[in-house]
Amino acid sequence: MTEKFAPTDVIVAKRDGHELTDDQIDWVVDAYTRGVVADEQMSALAMAILLNGMNRREIARWTAAMIATGERMDFSSLSRPTADKHSTGGVGDKITLPLAPLVAACGVAVPQLSGRGLGHTGGTLDKLESIPGWRAALSNDEMMTQLEDLGAVICAAGSGLAPADKKLYALRDITGTVEAIPLIASSIMSKKIAEGTGALVLDVKVGSGAFMKHEADARELAETMVALGTDAGVRTVALLTDMSIPLGLTAGNALEVRESVEVLAGGGPSDVVELTVALAREMLQAAGVTDVDPADALADGRAMDAWKAMIRAQDGDPDAELPVARETETVTADADGVLTSLDAYAVGVAAWRLGAGRSRPGEAVQAGAGVELHAKPGDTVRAGQPLLTLHTDTPERFERAREALEGGWSIGASGPRATPIVIDRIGG
Amino acid sequence: MTEKFAPTDVIVAKRDGHELTDDQIDWVVDAYTRGVVADEQMSALAMAILLNGMNRREIARWTAAMIATGERMDFSSLSRPTADKHSTGGVGDKITLPLAPLVAACGVAVPQLSGRGLGHTGGTLDKLESIPGWRAALSNDEMMTQLEDLGAVICAAGSGLAPADKKLYALRDITGTVEAIPLIASSIMSKKIAEGTGALVLDVKVGSGAFMKHEADARELAETMVALGTDAGVRTVALLTDMSIPLGLTAGNALEVRESVEVLAGGGPSDVVELTVALAREMLQAAGVTDVDPADALADGRAMDAWKAMIRAQDGDPDAELPVARETETVTADADGVLTSLDAYAVGVAAWRLGAGRSRPGEAVQAGAGVELHAKPGDTVRAGQPLLTLHTDTPERFERAREALEGGWSIGASGPRATPIVIDRIGG
Repeated sequence: MTEKFAPTDVIVAKRDGHELTDDQIDWVVDAYTRGVVADEQMSALAMAILLNGMNRREIARWTAAMIATGERMDFSSLSRPTADKHSTGGVGDKITLPLAPLVAACGVAVPQLSGRGLGHTGGTLDKLESIPGWRAALSNDEMMTQLEDLGAVICAAGSGLAPADKKLYALRDITGTVEAIPLIASSIMSKKIAEGTGALVLDVKVGSGAFMKHEADARELAETMVALGTDAGVRTVALLTDMSIPLGLTAGNALEVRESVEVLAGGGPSDVVELTVALAREMLQAAGVTDVDPADALADGRAMDAWKAMIRAQDGDPDAELPVARETETVTADADGVLTSLDAYAVGVAAWRLGAGRSRPGEAVQAGAGVELHAKPGDTVRAGQPLLTLHTDTPERFERAREALEGGWSIGASGPRATPIVIDRIGG
Repeated sequence: MTEKFAPTDVIVAKRDGHELTDDQIDWVVDAYTRGVVADEQMSALAMAILLNGMNRREIARWTAAMIATGERMDFSSLSRPTADKHSTGGVGDKITLPLAPLVAACGVAVPQLSGRGLGHTGGTLDKLESIPGWRAALSNDEMMTQLEDLGAVICAAGSGLAPADKKLYALRDITGTVEAIPLIASSIMSKKIAEGTGALVLDVKVGSGAFMKHEADARELAETMVALGTDAGVRTVALLTDMSIPLGLTAGNALEVRESVEVLAGGGPSDVVELTVALAREMLQAAGVTDVDPADALADGRAMDAWKAMIRAQDGDPDAELPVARETETVTADADGVLTSLDAYAVGVAAWRLGAGRSRPGEAVQAGAGVELHAKPGDTVRAGQPLLTLHTDTPERFERAREALEGGWSIGASGPRATPIVIDRIGG
């Protein structure tokens, strides 16, 4: 076939600060997927996009072009509305686990196509795989049946949705071009739009443990994604949420499942409960369901019932004992006072080094590994009291985990200013 | 072996506008040559360098790192000093052909390691290969012997000098990252420094037919290269020269050899003679030879003798008939008046489309193809008088060559302001 452009035409246009035309974007995304644009050409273009930017039109077109490289799903035959959630990732962010059954229990179907973790913010599938028997891979038919019958599915995203994104993400990961807001936004939104959800709530995290360290960047990303979703006919809203301290009291796969089950049982850490309910309210509202309070469904056990049914439907045993790490070590307070900080990034890296995360795609993770918190900023502590428990199957990992935590917490005379979990709401 | 850095460390540093450390530069150039840094990583880095720049220290270190990936030559055993020339390339730039034997005839050895052309500014080896029998490939021993005996060698650069550059140049060519002054300067200078010449004269061309369209860019490139050469112990000087109109009256392989021989015979177009003598004077001076006037060596036939000896030493027949294209077409003036412009780029593209150049490495070129000029800007012309003759073996090429020339020349009432060939001199 005769190609419409030469790869360098498109690279040089963006390099020299020009807007890419619709035709150029359609061609370069498609040609990259076909292998006509080589990896070394796309990485140069990604760097030019990172440094010179793309405007809203370019990002929307890029997203549409990525969607066009694959299949689109359609949930319109379901008897209930659909709403999905995406989090940009944070330390201890297990919210999807209680959230999906909670929203399902309130009458809205949640088709959560998830991924595995890479880096210090673990993946939802890795967490659920610590439940004995649970399987992540479902066929499209299984997924539709489960959604119709139970209302909640958390499963592995198939390779059919936006294959360009999968290829491009792997390339960005090794070429220093992950941190480009146009490419982050189009990566997330191409999959969510292709997935066919009717409504979408974005949890855009900001702070040391998040991908976006600064509120201005997080806000720009959120606004970009809300515009992309809205233009594509998906009712989209974003919450900017705090990720300067870990969410809840656990970071690690089985540890986070246990905490999620506590939340579904009506307990659990208050920040996890607060964010779960806030996101559930947004999902229900975006899906047009306004007469149900998700807090009730947590309190009366309907969310727990939905959780158990969802786990069982994917061959997991929701009542089985969860894996426990073979070894633990405790980090204790070195003074009396108030815990004034506990850095999310430090805890995330520690959990990752203990074996909860992976360095390369395909690496195994330890189900029991991670970090358990015994105090959060604002809590009074006494010298010698346990602050953190480190869990791993491989005790040689303790040393580097402790190194990651050095300087990651502090004890002072008075507590920190309380920060709200939800910083702002964008769109809707 | 344990690697000192991860590729993304270096990419992200330059992406975020930091200076690269000496260690980072040494590692990334070496690791790229070893294949540890992948093409898609180096192209992202090249784009970041293009957009964020490198300072003089970084460029010098990058150049040294490229030299360190290969072998270095040494001409110190020769009984005469050495001087080399590099041109950044222009339309009709055949200066190397008369220049090398001319300087040799004045007592300075010229080790010209050249390349083949890609794009509209043909390569020196392509031109010489139009001489029956002439061969470009010499062993190092053959080169040393010829330099000692005759003083002039023009031959193919072996793969042993700065292999990192060869690999990087091929990558830049397909990733829109050719136009980065730090990478252009280090590419040229790594080969010239590794070659071991004692003195170097750079012909940095500026204008429509040159790589650098703007004088400021050409000046920056020239200053960067002079500093690199000087710091490496090579006596280096640069001339900024005009490339807004073609050099001489021919663009094409055998056509340019014929014109070069005219210059060596004491004739030829005045601009070619002027630039040849100017560059020869710079080379002689840089090599410490100040008591010889190259104009005399052109006039008395010594340069022609050196040329014939040089061609014969590489199995060429300097007296053989040169190839002639099978077909010609004439472009005529459409009005009486003065030729006010004749765009070098248009003529270069026309010659390339007629078959004098190649689109891909390894493609064959036509020895006889090219463009012959019958007038230069400032000349009075009459309607119907031939302005250009197009030469090719493949007449279907005439149409696209004529398209390239459309708007490439103009006839008016009064002549253009005369522009000097040598615009400025830098360094020395």
